[in-house]
Amino acid sequence: MVQEHLTNLKNYFSENKPRILDEFFTFLRFQSISSEPEFRDSMHACVEWLKNYIQTLGFQTEIWKTDGHPILFATNLNAGPSKPTLLIYNHYDVQPIDPLELWESPPFEPEQRGQEIFARGAQDNKGQCFYVLQALKAMWEKEGQFPINIKLCIEGEEEMGSISLAKILPQKKQELKADYLAVVDMGINHPTEPAVTLGIRGIVTMDVEVSGSSFDLHSGSHGGIAYNPLHALSEMIAKLRDENGKIQVPHFYEDVGSLSANERSDLALNFHAEEYKRLFGAEATGGEKAFTPLERAWIRPTIEINGICGGYSGEGFKTVIPAKAYAKVSCRLVPNQDPQKIGQLVARYFEENAPQGIRVHVHLHEGGGNAVRANQQSKILKAFSKAYEEVFEAPCQYIFSGGSIPVVTKLAEASESEILLLGLGLPDDQIHAPNEHFGLDRLEKGFIIVFRGIELLGKS
Amino acid sequence: MVQEHLTNLKNYFSENKPRILDEFFTFLRFQSISSEPEFRDSMHACVEWLKNYIQTLGFQTEIWKTDGHPILFATNLNAGPSKPTLLIYNHYDVQPIDPLELWESPPFEPEQRGQEIFARGAQDNKGQCFYVLQALKAMWEKEGQFPINIKLCIEGEEEMGSISLAKILPQKKQELKADYLAVVDMGINHPTEPAVTLGIRGIVTMDVEVSGSSFDLHSGSHGGIAYNPLHALSEMIAKLRDENGKIQVPHFYEDVGSLSANERSDLALNFHAEEYKRLFGAEATGGEKAFTPLERAWIRPTIEINGICGGYSGEGFKTVIPAKAYAKVSCRLVPNQDPQKIGQLVARYFEENAPQGIRVHVHLHEGGGNAVRANQQSKILKAFSKAYEEVFEAPCQYIFSGGSIPVVTKLAEASESEILLLGLGLPDDQIHAPNEHFGLDRLEKGFIIVFRGIELLGKS
Repeated sequence: MVQEHLTNLKNYFSENKPRILDEFFTFLRFQSISSEPEFRDSMHACVEWLKNYIQTLGFQTEIWKTDGHPILFATNLNAGPSKPTLLIYNHYDVQPIDPLELWESPPFEPEQRGQEIFARGAQDNKGQCFYVLQALKAMWEKEGQFPINIKLCIEGEEEMGSISLAKILPQKKQELKADYLAVVDMGINHPTEPAVTLGIRGIVTMDVEVSGSSFDLHSGSHGGIAYNPLHALSEMIAKLRDENGKIQVPHFYEDVGSLSANERSDLALNFHAEEYKRLFGAEATGGEKAFTPLERAWIRPTIEINGICGGYSGEGFKTVIPAKAYAKVSCRLVPNQDPQKIGQLVARYFEENAPQGIRVHVHLHEGGGNAVRANQQSKILKAFSKAYEEVFEAPCQYIFSGGSIPVVTKLAEASESEILLLGLGLPDDQIHAPNEHFGLDRLEKGFIIVFRGIELLGKS
Repeated sequence: MVQEHLTNLKNYFSENKPRILDEFFTFLRFQSISSEPEFRDSMHACVEWLKNYIQTLGFQTEIWKTDGHPILFATNLNAGPSKPTLLIYNHYDVQPIDPLELWESPPFEPEQRGQEIFARGAQDNKGQCFYVLQALKAMWEKEGQFPINIKLCIEGEEEMGSISLAKILPQKKQELKADYLAVVDMGINHPTEPAVTLGIRGIVTMDVEVSGSSFDLHSGSHGGIAYNPLHALSEMIAKLRDENGKIQVPHFYEDVGSLSANERSDLALNFHAEEYKRLFGAEATGGEKAFTPLERAWIRPTIEINGICGGYSGEGFKTVIPAKAYAKVSCRLVPNQDPQKIGQLVARYFEENAPQGIRVHVHLHEGGGNAVRANQQSKILKAFSKAYEEVFEAPCQYIFSGGSIPVVTKLAEASESEILLLGLGLPDDQIHAPNEHFGLDRLEKGFIIVFRGIELLGKS
């Protein structure tokens, strides 16, 4: 009977495919880059479109205005107080698109090549948001009701730290209140292996500015006299980690716990080095040598330089000792590590390690977030694990994500709900990079998983 | 009688000042940035203007076409074969102008503020070229002849390594043949202290490309797994020098000689740390601790990173592990160091120090040059030292320059001439930086020094 039900859902998806793709492409065309001010109008247009779309699925909608980008909030509480309430989190904002020249098709003109849709946001997070909406739409059309109460929170600042949502949470506790929180922004490791995510890392980010002289100097006249900020920055970065990849910032690991043997034995820690090399062209030689690659990405904190600039980098050559050099630095955090504390430790590291004659200024960004751990015994985790197993016809694995969704902990606290972290991203979807893409097969699977998960949760 | 002569020259300058400034500003307005292809037309317009200008000073002119930018060559051999021939070298090309936003007036709209002229090239090298032309013009107008034979070589690729001039030299040996070569692209240390330069450093430059993955990776999913090229690059740069600033590239110092006690005792090695701090906002903490600041800049080789880029450096934040990171690297060289050999040593250093999982490609640039030493006993050095002393009314000092004019050795060899390195640049002229400027007083002094130097050389 479950099989028949699943077949019906697949048929629904096939029959509705032209409409689904048409609507998905419309969603993808909004240039909703949250971090770049010139896309403000696109952000508004995108959230208005979402609002209108979601109203057709039987939801009451409202747009929460903020100092930053608006948040879409929607509710359908027809199941009534005896039924549990599920809050589903997505985001409609996307990453910047540079370097533009590496895109094979324009990032905001979605294109299907083979069975993949290419566009900025195709996976992260419009694709994952869209299969949620398709599940709700099918359920509403078929049944005219939902088996549980459902709330949607679709924000517009996830890619820049969810500052506005974090700020508005204390005022919106009543509206957000739910039994369960489903964060649909995660992935699986392999196209054929279903997996639910048990934890994500926290994050803190900062800008480091290194100053030497009052203005750029000629490297002939001053080379050997003035301390070059690019050298100073490089030296400070090099000393961040020892030869075994262990981070040397004092007290950095102070609050890091370890997984229990139980927790670890459940984890799908098997790393496929050749597959990794094939997908990313990279070897797994980064991070702490004392841990396996997936441990390093999932349950260990990291520090990464996300950008350096300074001096001349155009065509030809300019023999300059720049006045300043800049780095963007982020740390991924594990449970118990406090983003602000870690940020301050790293800032102090840079300040204290500046060579004589070099000044350092570190600007800690708002919007950092704590690491998150889901409860493996919760009803929602069990319901959705089953949905994954049905759709993939394989046992559900338990994985972690190295990424961060800083607002998740705060949202779970404000809504007083138990967390589920799910999604169908794949490691090679090139999110945050040129040629981001998402597969039609996963759009369909996601649609069915969310449909089934909600059904199963309603019965549990 | 010398005093009266000098006064006459000063009067000439004062009386002609409106014309001189008008012509100088015209010269400065040409956007003759050699390294950026879009300024090719400006380069041609500039050399044409120079050609017409120099024809009015009694010179035969020709423009040497090259694969790159044209070279202006001019001769006035009326003094006849019994008189020596002086070849004067200048360049009409200038450095790029970025960062444009730091210029207080547009770089190609010259502006006089106080007694300084602000424009790209105001000093390097259009200002220094222009006072040479004014000396020749005054001499030609006053005397109708020159006391020695004069050749001018004004090239258009000094700021990009003089590749075309170096290439054309073997064909032009006959034309260039001279007894003396005056390279008017140097400086003095203080506005009141005359100085002739005894040596300049050589140079070799290269681009370093560091590669990790096939495309940019998400620092959440991959942080701790993949080796970040920005970290790899920083670590390799950090290890370039030890804690005493000594360069760690194997064999780097192998061919470095030391100055004789005699040579060293003649040098104006007194470094004014407070003055340096005031002018440049920097402390003299760079380079090798075992040497004084001016030794480090004048007679010791260096390695400097002139630019780094990689990852995200815009507004906000992007949590990326970039696929590639880039650095521009230059070495300043002292006598006996071969640019190609040093370049290869540095390239090998980077290639051999790449962490596992990281690939390095080093592209050595053409156009490096050897260090240069002038002969302190030559007639031309004596003549121009005396001219400096007359104009400044102070004893002429002997200094070095940390900068490089790669083509100088080759030009001296091709023309079989003895070198004089002179000029009136000051350390705070901000050449190669925003707000480059040159003083009217030095325009006048340069005019008189070149006038008197040529006269004295004619009599020696």
